[in-house]
Amino acid sequence: MPAISSKGLSMPESPIRKLVPYAEAATEKGKDIFYLNIGQPDIKTPDCALDAVKNNDLEIISYSHSAGFASYREKLAGYYQKGGIPVNTEDIIITTGGSEALLFTMGSIADMGDEVIIPEPFYANYNGFATSSGVNVVPVTASFEDGFALPPISEFEKKITDKTKAIIICNPGNPTGYLYTKEEIEQLAALVKKHDLFLVADEVYREFAYEGKKHHSVLNEVGIEENAIMIDSVSKRYSMCGARIGCVVSKNKEFIATAMKFAQARLSPPTFAQIASEAALDTPQSYFDDVIEEYVDRRDTLINALHKIEGVKVATPHGAFYCIAELPVEDAEDFAKWLLEDFDYEGETVMIAPASGFYSTPNSGLNQVRIAYVLKKENLLKAVKVIEEALKVYKK
Amino acid sequence: MPAISSKGLSMPESPIRKLVPYAEAATEKGKDIFYLNIGQPDIKTPDCALDAVKNNDLEIISYSHSAGFASYREKLAGYYQKGGIPVNTEDIIITTGGSEALLFTMGSIADMGDEVIIPEPFYANYNGFATSSGVNVVPVTASFEDGFALPPISEFEKKITDKTKAIIICNPGNPTGYLYTKEEIEQLAALVKKHDLFLVADEVYREFAYEGKKHHSVLNEVGIEENAIMIDSVSKRYSMCGARIGCVVSKNKEFIATAMKFAQARLSPPTFAQIASEAALDTPQSYFDDVIEEYVDRRDTLINALHKIEGVKVATPHGAFYCIAELPVEDAEDFAKWLLEDFDYEGETVMIAPASGFYSTPNSGLNQVRIAYVLKKENLLKAVKVIEEALKVYKK
Repeated sequence: MPAISSKGLSMPESPIRKLVPYAEAATEKGKDIFYLNIGQPDIKTPDCALDAVKNNDLEIISYSHSAGFASYREKLAGYYQKGGIPVNTEDIIITTGGSEALLFTMGSIADMGDEVIIPEPFYANYNGFATSSGVNVVPVTASFEDGFALPPISEFEKKITDKTKAIIICNPGNPTGYLYTKEEIEQLAALVKKHDLFLVADEVYREFAYEGKKHHSVLNEVGIEENAIMIDSVSKRYSMCGARIGCVVSKNKEFIATAMKFAQARLSPPTFAQIASEAALDTPQSYFDDVIEEYVDRRDTLINALHKIEGVKVATPHGAFYCIAELPVEDAEDFAKWLLEDFDYEGETVMIAPASGFYSTPNSGLNQVRIAYVLKKENLLKAVKVIEEALKVYKK
Repeated sequence: MPAISSKGLSMPESPIRKLVPYAEAATEKGKDIFYLNIGQPDIKTPDCALDAVKNNDLEIISYSHSAGFASYREKLAGYYQKGGIPVNTEDIIITTGGSEALLFTMGSIADMGDEVIIPEPFYANYNGFATSSGVNVVPVTASFEDGFALPPISEFEKKITDKTKAIIICNPGNPTGYLYTKEEIEQLAALVKKHDLFLVADEVYREFAYEGKKHHSVLNEVGIEENAIMIDSVSKRYSMCGARIGCVVSKNKEFIATAMKFAQARLSPPTFAQIASEAALDTPQSYFDDVIEEYVDRRDTLINALHKIEGVKVATPHGAFYCIAELPVEDAEDFAKWLLEDFDYEGETVMIAPASGFYSTPNSGLNQVRIAYVLKKENLLKAVKVIEEALKVYKK
């Protein structure tokens, strides 16, 4: 039998999806599951996006430009400009989700054996994209106690070698919900400038900043125009994760020209989804105001409820829609499986993502879980109740 | 300034798209262009696919299963079974175009520095996917005179090293239009079995077999179930290239499980396009009958017209919708640029793809072009007239 590649063998399983078979078995047994494991919001996609697809009158679904519809890129540049980010149409490549934007980026800036430094815990699929690109992830551990603020910049500098090509951040953070301050972004900017590295910021949750806090894009930092690469996506902003439209944005023309070669090889991003995404730019501000209000409410509901459970600690998120919680268990993955396999409270159980998969350092975050507050308040409360009851009987 | 990766620098430009700036300039000058450079058919997408998208009533565009909708995979398995290919739902992963299926495949079966053997000329983007995966393409040259039939199997065997992981074919061939015979597939099957290699067949043009010739899938070969991997796509079959839906199919469970990890990292294929693709499976046979009749007619029109031009030779295609033509020029790429930049016949010109980009061996196919017969007959005739008139004055 022909052999699977070492790369294939070392591809990590997604910590968000690895418990899916347990969930399927639980559903078969008749349990109702609250899915807190995945950032799939229950928020309605804006009507303008849905209607544009319903009303499209294309007769041939053709390839688009490899960088995406020119009309969409132009309108998207306007959207960023309105938000104070000085980019133009030619600085943008539309991609198949933020995922593909990250793959194009890694391919364009790093070779086999090169390194990227990422504060951990980080979005677990960065591991997959790194493995797939032959790139090694070098973690700098952020602390639960500090709410996952940026680790001291000296910790990053210590990890820089001649193989280091970039620092990658997610801002606001998935899975932490941490929103980097302007000072933190400036520290990173100075560091990448000093060492001639790229600073890649995954800003797909850019609109989800709470308590009036402002999101600071790496594209706003003066002096690192050649270093800064932004990853974005429509998935969370418009609750259309299934569209699979993202983009990579940079003022570095050589980088964009290189990423464009990867884009050409795969021909084009999906047409229907580009129609939806272009139309989504007309979403009224009231939609976002309502959504943010809803998420703040959910966050407060979730955090307050979790805080009431003995032994549970939460790092309060200020952006995105995730939080990391410490549970009074030794092995959160075992607990998460047990919740699906062996537990229910009044016929209901919960699916949560073990946080260890969001760390690159072995044996980290073993007692932590990531919780996505993407469900209605009443369901979040029911889900927390399940966790509370479960902790009373788990391994007792 | 931070450095671009060697991988990024060595990513090949697409020979199909590299002349696009010249075409844009020609359009600005007011020339009408016949696009024979790209496999973008002018055939209408089936109504059932378009209507399914228009009539969808989703309120949230959610992630789908990473392997694609279960309902779509099931129906797709039925479609293959009906065509005599014994695969089931669990043997199929839905991908974002055939492109992503090839990327998942290369990642799953080959490591940095490994080799894949491909008969050339081959679909140029294989180079991009190979570069992107760190894999080296080892070509075996097929001959124009033989109509690009499979080169002697001994030529393949000579190229096998301990780094060889797979033989990749495109059947029917892009850019050659060659349809492999059952005997040729059997020879390849015996070879991969003997050397424990994968046999990857890009069968996206499987429906486009002419003159009553039958297409032979690698999945029909008994005894190579663990070796055979099929790449497919809805792009050409239903004239919906912009949907970006393909799939990778194999009975090798370890391979599928590995490819699935790549699929999970990028979350899911696009939702709207899956709706279209699932519905497209209801396309009536009459649609295909009409399309095939149209392509045969176009092929005959094109080939006959080209044959009448002095010094032009054509390898007659028996499948897909491309042909390779030899032109009486030294440098077909220069000719193709010149057609766009410096020539028109009654205000019209032609965009063709220089064939050298479809060869991996340097300086091959320099006087060849790939022509896609994706336009209506009257336009094909006009386009050939442009080429005929152009050849009279080029470099004279």
